[in-house]
Amino acid sequence: MIYFDNAATGGYKPESVITATMAALRACANPGRSGHALSVACAERVYSVRKILQSFFGAPSADRVIFTKNCTEALNIAILGSLKEGDRVVTTVAEHNSVLRPLKFLEEHRGVKVRYAPLDRSGNINIKALISLVDDSTSAVVMTLASNVTGAAPDVYAVRRAIPAHTYLICDGAQACGHESIDVTALGIDALAVAGHKGMLAAQGSGALIMSSRFNPEPIMFGGTGSESFNLAMPEFYPDRSEAGTLNYPAIISLGEGALYLKTRMYEHRDFLVYLTDKLLAGLTQMPFVRVYSRTNPYGIASFDVEGASSEDIADRLSHDYSVCVRAGLHCAPLMHGALGTSGLVRASLSPFNTEGEVEYFLKAMREIVDGR
Amino acid sequence: MIYFDNAATGGYKPESVITATMAALRACANPGRSGHALSVACAERVYSVRKILQSFFGAPSADRVIFTKNCTEALNIAILGSLKEGDRVVTTVAEHNSVLRPLKFLEEHRGVKVRYAPLDRSGNINIKALISLVDDSTSAVVMTLASNVTGAAPDVYAVRRAIPAHTYLICDGAQACGHESIDVTALGIDALAVAGHKGMLAAQGSGALIMSSRFNPEPIMFGGTGSESFNLAMPEFYPDRSEAGTLNYPAIISLGEGALYLKTRMYEHRDFLVYLTDKLLAGLTQMPFVRVYSRTNPYGIASFDVEGASSEDIADRLSHDYSVCVRAGLHCAPLMHGALGTSGLVRASLSPFNTEGEVEYFLKAMREIVDGR
Repeated sequence: MIYFDNAATGGYKPESVITATMAALRACANPGRSGHALSVACAERVYSVRKILQSFFGAPSADRVIFTKNCTEALNIAILGSLKEGDRVVTTVAEHNSVLRPLKFLEEHRGVKVRYAPLDRSGNINIKALISLVDDSTSAVVMTLASNVTGAAPDVYAVRRAIPAHTYLICDGAQACGHESIDVTALGIDALAVAGHKGMLAAQGSGALIMSSRFNPEPIMFGGTGSESFNLAMPEFYPDRSEAGTLNYPAIISLGEGALYLKTRMYEHRDFLVYLTDKLLAGLTQMPFVRVYSRTNPYGIASFDVEGASSEDIADRLSHDYSVCVRAGLHCAPLMHGALGTSGLVRASLSPFNTEGEVEYFLKAMREIVDGR
Repeated sequence: MIYFDNAATGGYKPESVITATMAALRACANPGRSGHALSVACAERVYSVRKILQSFFGAPSADRVIFTKNCTEALNIAILGSLKEGDRVVTTVAEHNSVLRPLKFLEEHRGVKVRYAPLDRSGNINIKALISLVDDSTSAVVMTLASNVTGAAPDVYAVRRAIPAHTYLICDGAQACGHESIDVTALGIDALAVAGHKGMLAAQGSGALIMSSRFNPEPIMFGGTGSESFNLAMPEFYPDRSEAGTLNYPAIISLGEGALYLKTRMYEHRDFLVYLTDKLLAGLTQMPFVRVYSRTNPYGIASFDVEGASSEDIADRLSHDYSVCVRAGLHCAPLMHGALGTSGLVRASLSPFNTEGEVEYFLKAMREIVDGR
């Protein structure tokens, strides 16, 4: 089987991640809940992962690292927790439903006003148009660091420099994290949502919200925190304020190990992934009836369609006849497809653990499929 | 090390759970997101776990099983998702902060009116008093199936029979699930919150909300579901409506394996756990200066205090001098301590995997601590 669906869930985890996660699964107490030796040891390791992520993402401090169950929860905390009745928000048509759906909810239930930046001619977010939608009354810009459909990445720092200082910048890092250096402080990002199970090489069930020191979202879930147990409200301090209920210790450990692994290998990975992605895109571009929607990118994303065939048909052929896993359809990003003028795309998404041979096999398979139309 | 903190997080997982979870960690795609063979295989296994839990908890159908990251998320979906502006709710002083904190939030922000049933003289929830607080205007009763502080368990079926048919019955199963048979349909429970990592013997990061067919909570998080990607609102159908973002496949597998393991062993476990708990309680009861707050129970919970010593002091002695892990303090249940008249208790919480020898060692340690006062 050739696994080219890494933008959905990473297909390979380093042995260090697997081993540490398994050990955490076998022996763990409830971190931060009890005072005995094992609970304290787990709490200390959870804190050590906050420190690792603080350093990895340039967070101002470890307590600005909130652990979540996935990137979607991180985005929900950031969006639902920070936007108030009547706030104005600018987002983009390139967003995933993990951004679009919370914003639509706020639009319908809290009178939040949402405006959508379009794409430019190259298929990237039109930064000029986005900036023109922002004014002093804009509470937040919510945008992806890399489209999960095409891998197109906007210049987020250009956005930060152009928008008012008080406007929050909330970023969806689902596809970008683990593939490139992201320093939230240097980039002026107020909230970065991190998926653990994609580029970060960690387990499903891991995720994080990295916050600037001024970003203080209200909780969206309420429950035990192991702190201020006498208090019927959530504690005022972070991370506790945004972490209700038992933490997922094994997933947190996996995220820490993934970040440590990437610390020494991310740039090497990126170079190889760009090489693989380029090779795949170049091969597809030469095929008749194939239209490619991705440009070179360090996220391993290559989307395309085939004239006269649905994306599902192509993906089914690849899976059934060639044991190649790709994803078809809308990829939970409906407005992006509207903007690209497609009704669905085939997305091959590579990881640095894929090989040149796999790319060659994939291209051979695609040539056969296209020839056999 | 003797681990008597199983009510916080289970200290032992069966080998079948560990093995299946590890396999799921190594090889998984994103269930329900793509159409390729591996994603479909994962989606089918996720569905099989819904079927296992449907059967285990007597749910009306598999789509009434919502996967959550922990019991707290399940309670938040049930409470925040079902109670509307001005609703009246009855709960109890025995509740955990995972119930008290969402209700307090609704009280302060949505004008929900919350009334608290007291304890009876035996330290259990006063069912008569609870029922007297309920009337036709009560939208929901929210109550635990077993106190996490003492292990006291109310007769929830008596509550169901006495309250109006239209009143929702929302139950916190954090301590009860996995220790006894719970059939939500037979008991008339509308929403049962399940913790995976305690009695269910599964991994942290696993949890579920089991719903009656009439219980249709609004989502509290919004994002990709892999379904109706074109729709900017969450789908109307369950489980998708309440499951935003990538599912935690390994945790779900672990929960399924835990339930399968318990299917053949739960009653045997329960008998042994009652035996161990009785032995521990009997030993404590005979000690001078020790006051016991638990009665025999199938949850393995034994709480006590020692005259003239704080619960933290006793727990620290047990951890440092005897390598025994227990939990001190309020256990995230502040109103319960008020009702019991304590400012903190030592809670030893056993699992069926603890041994008689461990209980004897613990009692010896406690005798030395009490003698050395």
